[in-house]
Amino acid sequence: MREVAIIGIGQTPVDEHWGKSLKELAGEAILAALADAKGESVEALFIGNMLSGILAKQENLGALISDWIGLPGIEAEKVEAACGSGAAAFRSALMAVGSGEIASALVVGVEKMTESLPIETTEALATAADADYESAQGLSFVAINALVMQRYMHTFGWQHKDFAPFSINAHANAMHNPFARLHDEITQEDYLEARMIADPINLLDASPIGDGAAAVLLVPANSIQANGRRRIKVIGSASETDTVAVHSRKDPLWLSAAERSAHKAYQHAGVSPEDIDFFELHDAFSIMSVLSLEACGFADRGQGPRLGLDGEISIQGRIPITTRGGLKARGHPVGATGVYQIVEAVQQLRGEADQTQVNDPHIGMTQNIGGSGATIITHILKAG
Amino acid sequence: MREVAIIGIGQTPVDEHWGKSLKELAGEAILAALADAKGESVEALFIGNMLSGILAKQENLGALISDWIGLPGIEAEKVEAACGSGAAAFRSALMAVGSGEIASALVVGVEKMTESLPIETTEALATAADADYESAQGLSFVAINALVMQRYMHTFGWQHKDFAPFSINAHANAMHNPFARLHDEITQEDYLEARMIADPINLLDASPIGDGAAAVLLVPANSIQANGRRRIKVIGSASETDTVAVHSRKDPLWLSAAERSAHKAYQHAGVSPEDIDFFELHDAFSIMSVLSLEACGFADRGQGPRLGLDGEISIQGRIPITTRGGLKARGHPVGATGVYQIVEAVQQLRGEADQTQVNDPHIGMTQNIGGSGATIITHILKAG
Repeated sequence: MREVAIIGIGQTPVDEHWGKSLKELAGEAILAALADAKGESVEALFIGNMLSGILAKQENLGALISDWIGLPGIEAEKVEAACGSGAAAFRSALMAVGSGEIASALVVGVEKMTESLPIETTEALATAADADYESAQGLSFVAINALVMQRYMHTFGWQHKDFAPFSINAHANAMHNPFARLHDEITQEDYLEARMIADPINLLDASPIGDGAAAVLLVPANSIQANGRRRIKVIGSASETDTVAVHSRKDPLWLSAAERSAHKAYQHAGVSPEDIDFFELHDAFSIMSVLSLEACGFADRGQGPRLGLDGEISIQGRIPITTRGGLKARGHPVGATGVYQIVEAVQQLRGEADQTQVNDPHIGMTQNIGGSGATIITHILKAG
Repeated sequence: MREVAIIGIGQTPVDEHWGKSLKELAGEAILAALADAKGESVEALFIGNMLSGILAKQENLGALISDWIGLPGIEAEKVEAACGSGAAAFRSALMAVGSGEIASALVVGVEKMTESLPIETTEALATAADADYESAQGLSFVAINALVMQRYMHTFGWQHKDFAPFSINAHANAMHNPFARLHDEITQEDYLEARMIADPINLLDASPIGDGAAAVLLVPANSIQANGRRRIKVIGSASETDTVAVHSRKDPLWLSAAERSAHKAYQHAGVSPEDIDFFELHDAFSIMSVLSLEACGFADRGQGPRLGLDGEISIQGRIPITTRGGLKARGHPVGATGVYQIVEAVQQLRGEADQTQVNDPHIGMTQNIGGSGATIITHILKAG
């Protein structure tokens, strides 16, 4: 596969966008990415989206959005892998451009979640779980993660307060990201006193839903003209799966798909965890941050919370995470999230992350998860 | 892109499968394809599906089905392009294998449509149309096609009875396909007397919904051992789009995306319409057969019905279509249809089409459509 690079990025704020439809949000992010790419042409459009058919009664987004953005007729399709849809669409585009079949591909992740009744959105999100064996029993998505967190605390002897640094770090970083959904600095006390959602997950353990879109343009790496900015190449990419139902796994406290996905991406890129300068991980719930760090080789099994308590996840730490706010504070418009992560990684590698800029990063990693650890897609990007 | 070939095919009958869930249907088709491929390994799974989130409350099909079929952990995703989802998944898999990133990819198209209330299925199908400008006005999918057919008859002076050969041909061919939904030979009289659905589309102009799954396995063409069967290579592939809303097109009677998609596929394959030995087209409604034949260069504009009246579309004709029953009589489980077309084309090219075998075909074409001409994906396959 020929080497592929990211030439343009764009995003909308994550928010309750009452005045904008799904295609308008997608268009806004795409036009920003095209402006950033400075006039590249586009041959194909890959859309990451999970809920549009259920919540907006609209499928066929490929043709709809390509027409809306003024590129009528181009090849276009939607890719769905639950909350991992954004990275799945990115990986499909990567292979399309990498194969030589497509000269340039736009990827847009887009989701509109706040217009529906909250119960409808919760039910729609539950389609990421196993309909026969999880959702049918009344388990919502937060409830599944609560069971995992409860078990983790029991097995490894951690207390709820030990997870506080993940949320505090995400909120602190989001303060400097104008596209983030939440701009509220939170304290340890706020975290401890937050309203309970599904014990032990409280409001500050959970990422907020939102409306938003993020877009990138992919081209062959050798086609990029030097334009004064760092060239961002995709040097690692892998997607792996696990059972959808958490109870079917031998070990519900180990993200096997994350381990395999990260390992393949490391191999692909010829790097190891020590080479990763920052990690945009999938912190849908604080327990997922912990499990991701362990599975990807940044902490020993059962020791993930230690990274938070020791300050290793901050911008100045050993492995900065959620540097632009993460799912927790930038927000989690599900099918868009994987593309937001890529956009934010490019910002870091270009040195455009302002007050949350990691010091001179060369290699960044993103990881997007569909379901409770069922579909896990890792990308490694490199500047220069 | 390296050359890719189809090494295994499998399918379930299209039917009302009350006793089988979506994943069971997918599994049945996949296991048949793997048996046909005689022990090839599988690295990735691409799923064509449109309605599972809405009708079965189940997304994340990639992880769900890979686990179910006994390949837990492999890369997997769903691709959606309305009723063109099957071919869109096939094309994504083609590029993944073509790029060298993936060594072998399963494609399964699967849909389960008959378990829901008919009104729910009709509403779900309308998500392929423009939610703001078509569905919101009460237009169902058959109603949109009825407007197009009405206009076509008015503009070019055809009568409803002139479309009869398309349905009669499809039903006649399906009589010999054990996987077809309908095994009823129909006459001109049956066609003329059929119950009206949306004037001028009657029951025998419209394809039936159904449950079903079809699967193929793709590998690099140079990896195939001679095994006594013809090798089937994918020599042309293209996906193009048009506006979702039919009223937005300059000419609602011309499938511009079909013309562009077929033209690109012809170029890719180095062939012209005269070289195509049979054409599995998207006959969701008889008007769509006519428009597809015209746009792909088999008939002049406004003259499509002539091919039916002159017997050119039969197995012995100039351009045999719907040789295994087509959408009209094999059935149209929407996200699966594009993969059924590929399976049937492979049967023809291998010489396994029994009583509806086209005489010594070398090159076959398939075309799958999402929406009323919005997303159109063409593939050209070659034996040997």
